[in-house]
Amino acid sequence: MAHIELPIAPQLGREFPGIVGLMTFRPETAAPINALVNILLRGESTLTRGERELIAVHVSSRNDCFFCQTIHGAVAAAQLDRGEELVRAVKTDWESAGVSPKLKALLNIAGKVQQGGKHVSEDDVAAARALGATDQEIHDTVLIAAVFCMCNRYVDGLGTWAPQDEEIYRARAAEIVEHGYSAVTETAIARASR
Amino acid sequence: MAHIELPIAPQLGREFPGIVGLMTFRPETAAPINALVNILLRGESTLTRGERELIAVHVSSRNDCFFCQTIHGAVAAAQLDRGEELVRAVKTDWESAGVSPKLKALLNIAGKVQQGGKHVSEDDVAAARALGATDQEIHDTVLIAAVFCMCNRYVDGLGTWAPQDEEIYRARAAEIVEHGYSAVTETAIARASR
Repeated sequence: MAHIELPIAPQLGREFPGIVGLMTFRPETAAPINALVNILLRGESTLTRGERELIAVHVSSRNDCFFCQTIHGAVAAAQLDRGEELVRAVKTDWESAGVSPKLKALLNIAGKVQQGGKHVSEDDVAAARALGATDQEIHDTVLIAAVFCMCNRYVDGLGTWAPQDEEIYRARAAEIVEHGYSAVTETAIARASR
Repeated sequence: MAHIELPIAPQLGREFPGIVGLMTFRPETAAPINALVNILLRGESTLTRGERELIAVHVSSRNDCFFCQTIHGAVAAAQLDRGEELVRAVKTDWESAGVSPKLKALLNIAGKVQQGGKHVSEDDVAAARALGATDQEIHDTVLIAAVFCMCNRYVDGLGTWAPQDEEIYRARAAEIVEHGYSAVTETAIARASR
């Protein structure tokens, strides 16, 4: 049970899982959070959507947030070749995962941000730049990592529940890939009953 | 120097300090971040604006983010009786600071969120509720703490600079108190030159 009383999802007979339950409780703060995540993970970028989701997975995994790492793992997998294998590799041993050297340097920066902003060194940034990372890619990597340090704490700090069945996450990921984060959450908000 | 090249503030001859410099670099992500902070720190709430800023100060201080703790300290102080003294107390020894027992229980929860979401226990939440905290106050406390774990990492993860002169923060705080976070940042974005 969450630490606060959340609206009920009629099809579940209990609250929506993870951050979605919190967003049905406070739609006013849900809107800018979803807008921010949509821009960073789905907006125009020289990083693919799959690559950006892997940054979110890496940080959420290091913060041990089951809901976030599982849903973003499913969204990443749906948008990458051999996606589920790659997501598993990033979660268990990102340094040997089959991603580009540039993305690996960005995952390194994201991992430093997860520990705390001051852990990012000039050398970390120079290494990413030497592998072709642009200022905007470095900026977005730091902000994606920071955003997931927020979302992970929001989800776990309020004690939300998370389904264990991976099939549920795959189905939800397909909706997110098609419609985006804001639209999927707005549907949940419209369905939830207080 | 920041880790990436930021637009220049004409009146400074260098980039805007802290998060403002980053927001002039990427106005698209600035808008939802400011919207979120405005709702949480300035929107309708049964916590005063000064109390909510103290939660931001507490988390930013524990994350050792000089820019965030100083600007939000100045914004808190401007909206509280004996504000500067209170801000100093929250930064150095929050457990003996002269705030209400309810706010102290919420600062305890915010401090747990700073460490990681799973650090918040049912007992922490029950203690706040026993002192009169509502579900929305508990929700907003967790989300404010989570948002500042994001902002602190964004500011320090990209190596932004921060002025040392407290008078600069007092002047900027007065503008924020009058106009809000979005408006003040939009002015900076309009002035910045690439």
